[in-house]
Amino acid sequence: MNDSLQKRLFDELEQFPLIDPHTHINPLAAASKNLGDILGYHYYTELAHSAGLSREMIEEPGLSSREKVGRLAGYLGKLQNTAQYAWLLDICREFFEFDEEDVTPENWERLYDNAERVLSQSDWEQQVLKKSGLEQVYLTNDFDDPLEGFDTSFYVPCLRTDDLVFHLTKPEVRERLSRSVNRSLQSIDDLQGAIRDLFVRFTRRGARACAISLPPDFSPTLISAATITPIWSRLQKGEKLTSEEAGLLSRYVFWQLAENCVIFELPFDLMIGVNRRVYEDGVYQGQDLYDKRTSLIQYRDLFNSFPQIKFPISVLTHTSNQELVSYTWIFPNVIANGHWWYSNTPAYIEHDCRTRLTAVPQTKYVGYYSDMYKLEFALPKFRMYRRILAKVLSEEFVIGRGWSETKALDLGKRILRGNVEEIFGKA
Amino acid sequence: MNDSLQKRLFDELEQFPLIDPHTHINPLAAASKNLGDILGYHYYTELAHSAGLSREMIEEPGLSSREKVGRLAGYLGKLQNTAQYAWLLDICREFFEFDEEDVTPENWERLYDNAERVLSQSDWEQQVLKKSGLEQVYLTNDFDDPLEGFDTSFYVPCLRTDDLVFHLTKPEVRERLSRSVNRSLQSIDDLQGAIRDLFVRFTRRGARACAISLPPDFSPTLISAATITPIWSRLQKGEKLTSEEAGLLSRYVFWQLAENCVIFELPFDLMIGVNRRVYEDGVYQGQDLYDKRTSLIQYRDLFNSFPQIKFPISVLTHTSNQELVSYTWIFPNVIANGHWWYSNTPAYIEHDCRTRLTAVPQTKYVGYYSDMYKLEFALPKFRMYRRILAKVLSEEFVIGRGWSETKALDLGKRILRGNVEEIFGKA
Amino acid sequence: MNDSLQKRLFDELEQFPLIDPHTHINPLAAASKNLGDILGYHYYTELAHSAGLSREMIEEPGLSSREKVGRLAGYLGKLQNTAQYAWLLDICREFFEFDEEDVTPENWERLYDNAERVLSQSDWEQQVLKKSGLEQVYLTNDFDDPLEGFDTSFYVPCLRTDDLVFHLTKPEVRERLSRSVNRSLQSIDDLQGAIRDLFVRFTRRGARACAISLPPDFSPTLISAATITPIWSRLQKGEKLTSEEAGLLSRYVFWQLAENCVIFELPFDLMIGVNRRVYEDGVYQGQDLYDKRTSLIQYRDLFNSFPQIKFPISVLTHTSNQELVSYTWIFPNVIANGHWWYSNTPAYIEHDCRTRLTAVPQTKYVGYYSDMYKLEFALPKFRMYRRILAKVLSEEFVIGRGWSETKALDLGKRILRGNVEEIFGKA
Repeated sequence: MNDSLQKRLFDELEQFPLIDPHTHINPLAAASKNLGDILGYHYYTELAHSAGLSREMIEEPGLSSREKVGRLAGYLGKLQNTAQYAWLLDICREFFEFDEEDVTPENWERLYDNAERVLSQSDWEQQVLKKSGLEQVYLTNDFDDPLEGFDTSFYVPCLRTDDLVFHLTKPEVRERLSRSVNRSLQSIDDLQGAIRDLFVRFTRRGARACAISLPPDFSPTLISAATITPIWSRLQKGEKLTSEEAGLLSRYVFWQLAENCVIFELPFDLMIGVNRRVYEDGVYQGQDLYDKRTSLIQYRDLFNSFPQIKFPISVLTHTSNQELVSYTWIFPNVIANGHWWYSNTPAYIEHDCRTRLTAVPQTKYVGYYSDMYKLEFALPKFRMYRRILAKVLSEEFVIGRGWSETKALDLGKRILRGNVEEIFGKA
Repeated sequence: MNDSLQKRLFDELEQFPLIDPHTHINPLAAASKNLGDILGYHYYTELAHSAGLSREMIEEPGLSSREKVGRLAGYLGKLQNTAQYAWLLDICREFFEFDEEDVTPENWERLYDNAERVLSQSDWEQQVLKKSGLEQVYLTNDFDDPLEGFDTSFYVPCLRTDDLVFHLTKPEVRERLSRSVNRSLQSIDDLQGAIRDLFVRFTRRGARACAISLPPDFSPTLISAATITPIWSRLQKGEKLTSEEAGLLSRYVFWQLAENCVIFELPFDLMIGVNRRVYEDGVYQGQDLYDKRTSLIQYRDLFNSFPQIKFPISVLTHTSNQELVSYTWIFPNVIANGHWWYSNTPAYIEHDCRTRLTAVPQTKYVGYYSDMYKLEFALPKFRMYRRILAKVLSEEFVIGRGWSETKALDLGKRILRGNVEEIFGKA
Repeated sequence: MNDSLQKRLFDELEQFPLIDPHTHINPLAAASKNLGDILGYHYYTELAHSAGLSREMIEEPGLSSREKVGRLAGYLGKLQNTAQYAWLLDICREFFEFDEEDVTPENWERLYDNAERVLSQSDWEQQVLKKSGLEQVYLTNDFDDPLEGFDTSFYVPCLRTDDLVFHLTKPEVRERLSRSVNRSLQSIDDLQGAIRDLFVRFTRRGARACAISLPPDFSPTLISAATITPIWSRLQKGEKLTSEEAGLLSRYVFWQLAENCVIFELPFDLMIGVNRRVYEDGVYQGQDLYDKRTSLIQYRDLFNSFPQIKFPISVLTHTSNQELVSYTWIFPNVIANGHWWYSNTPAYIEHDCRTRLTAVPQTKYVGYYSDMYKLEFALPKFRMYRRILAKVLSEEFVIGRGWSETKALDLGKRILRGNVEEIFGKA
């Protein structure tokens, strides 16, 4: 009974069209061209590397896409147990008419050819959007992204600000900023103006969020212009900042971003907890890890200072989930957002989803975003989430509290899509 | 089979009379007078506020109880998914003849009237105690509570000591202390004597525990009278202490409390992990959060120094539960106590209950306390716990280990009540 | 269906012969002599003590084994709910023809006699190995263990190095080291040479791993010989080191061990997170606890510096499991190893097993080791794990992904044994 109930709820959720509120899609090349684009996703390269394939083999200069897939295919056997591999199978079965049990060194070439045939269709991008039920896809745009050449009402821009907050000490980043807003950055006023200009440009192009990923030890506070002025001057003169000064500058810029989120009425997506380049010899995008010793208490000043801003928050670790639940429960401006990266596997999602759904207002949990680089991944990743959501809805609400299936599905649809629209704006 | 087994165990547990070992009941106004008292519980005001209702609307001076309920009712729709709302429904159905699916803007007035009719019965307090199976209710009393006007063998006093440990630097707290024991507080000896007097007065009135809630960074150690004497003198002269000196005073007073727990043979309830007033603009009692970076290792000296004291310990976070399990497993004087506040939702309770029941002596886990402010909440909160307990008993013991239902129920009854009696004393 | 599926998988896993890759077996007295050896396991003495039996009663000098069991038997009633007690019942039923519901003050003597009869059989050691399906048992050997008198191809030596890293400031430890390698330890070169000699001796005797347990605050880094030379000289002169100097020495020696693991191609088992002697008045081996505030980020330099070494890592706490999953997923040289000590109870194992099995390459998780002191414990501890493994395999793979039972069992066998052979070497 329970199994068929879950199945019914899942099937209904599968029919429901989606907005994907956080991806790394390049709107000028949104879909994959071949299986290499799919197996090139860092989830596969890093796992194959972890299982024994050298970085040199994966990232050899001039390596063809076909050859790369061949090399990775030899290591997929060791990854068959992973949820990440299950996404791959789902893609191959759903899109590439793959009907074998596994992708193996024996069958990958035929799969490669089939995939290429499918992916090279001129309307593949529209096909995959339709098959995946995607009605809108949010992007992650560098601050100097021209935001041109695509339909911003479908591919919605978001201002990604890691570089501004954490790398403004690098001359090349200041140079990029200066060029992108066509301003010199002599004074702190110039810097403030430049940041303002970015928000103007992004919101004119329909941006729906400002976003940033943050290391575990970051703790934003108000830093006065008076404090930062001499530091900025020294930086302009080419002097090197101490790490403490660089930290002050980071917090100053971060606070400026928040001020602009108020003015431009943008949600501020915080993705909390990642340490970059922990494994320095890892593959591309497979080098980042974390220190679980972090707390949302570090954001206390921010949440208190900006009641007008919506803060959709992603935490990197399951051990931070209860803080996210509790802070969402108490702070009107905090919203629990998706299941991020190292917490994006079923056993973590299920517990995190269950605790959120039973403790915070149903308007304050955005169920899922794909974080994908290529469109083909929305289907298997959202499907994984929908399966878990159907399980939690059936166990906690239909069985646990005697809700009708309709009522449970309404809750599910709100979590999957309604809250995205309420928080970021309608499609 | 499993479902009907759980149901049988649950039904048996439901019949079993309770002692509630930690509440905030005012024994002179123990039951609710109207639905406003029930919806005024901070769980509802803070969730409604989190979902969008302004604090000003909730806490408007002169607001009638009826009007307040009307305003909150407009936000309950957003909270239907929460466990906290499920308690409310349970109360309304059990006590107020409510038989609709949800409390809505359309039906709340009729419910309000029905509730008022029920709650205004002259014997309602006795009725609700009977319906809830409550045979004894522990209180939380300020140190200067007169403890008069109620039956202390039913409403059992407990000495709450947060003010003494964390607010003795405030003249008004010292003034309250001085008045309550009718002593000046000139010297450290006076302070010691005053604390002793409190214990004398409370134990004469049948107190069964000394209790305190503690911030995540608190770490008690022995502070000598010699260290604290000059600090106390400066405080008496009206000088301001540094935060370090205030911290020494907190630890000194805390240790004095422990010394008196030995003398007066009182358990010392520690509720570990709360930061007060994190969200400063939150509703009344809806401002506190936490930093999960805390450890029971901070209590190492305390547990080693006072083997004679029983320490029933509540932890605020699920991430602290395993430490509580391990410390309870090793230290004879540590007892795992209930499921507190932000960990008091089903998914956390279930895992915490399961890990405790399968790893520590069955004599060292006090299953549940309601933490309620009004008597009506014992029934739904204990029922939530009993449902989970029945699930764990059935899965782990009847099915997992082949125990008879009788044996599993005996374990359940011990966890629900037997251990309360052994640790705090018989009803 | 699910229940019978789990049962089938479990039954198959039960037939599968084991290698136990971490124990504290004394190969010269591997099996128990009587029930006192079994109930003397710290899991029982510490739990009985926690439940109220005084250390003096348990550790009374001259106490006979029979009398000790009698005293402990009086406290087993309070432990019937624990997983640890379930191991005991399993042993008694499987080996000692015990068919009663529980071990009680009434029946323990008969059980004692039966056990003694069984355990005194001259071939008991071979019997218990056979009944338990053990084909190889890894040891934990002090650095000065002579490694003589037993078959090292069955009882495989491992070099345990806690004393070298954390107690080399003690003259008696330096004396033991000096004697064991027959060298003076005047210079840092001597110390290096001595450590090298240990590795030579251990690997000649077939050692398969270097192993160490580490406190939560340990963070290894490269310490130069130049830094350590004056500290070592002062130590040789009998001077007392500061705690900072002692910490430098610990890290120096630790790094030397890693260097030798490279040279001698040994895995380096890290058991992370234990604080020793937290409860100073606890029973033997029942004094250690922890501070959950630790992170694998502390091992960043180590993992980056030694890509050639395999690091099977055990974490003491469930809250560290996700870090272990993530670091195993990213670092090729990190391997998730077993379920250690305070995390070795079913509810923790299940979640930890499930998250590992669904997120890291299947070659990088060593399912279980017993950590036992006497051979009789392999059967119930591995059985507990196999039951959980069968549950996860059935739910996640057979039901969740439609795998055949054969394929799921192949994964199970790899986790149980195949990975032990790949990582530590064939039996």
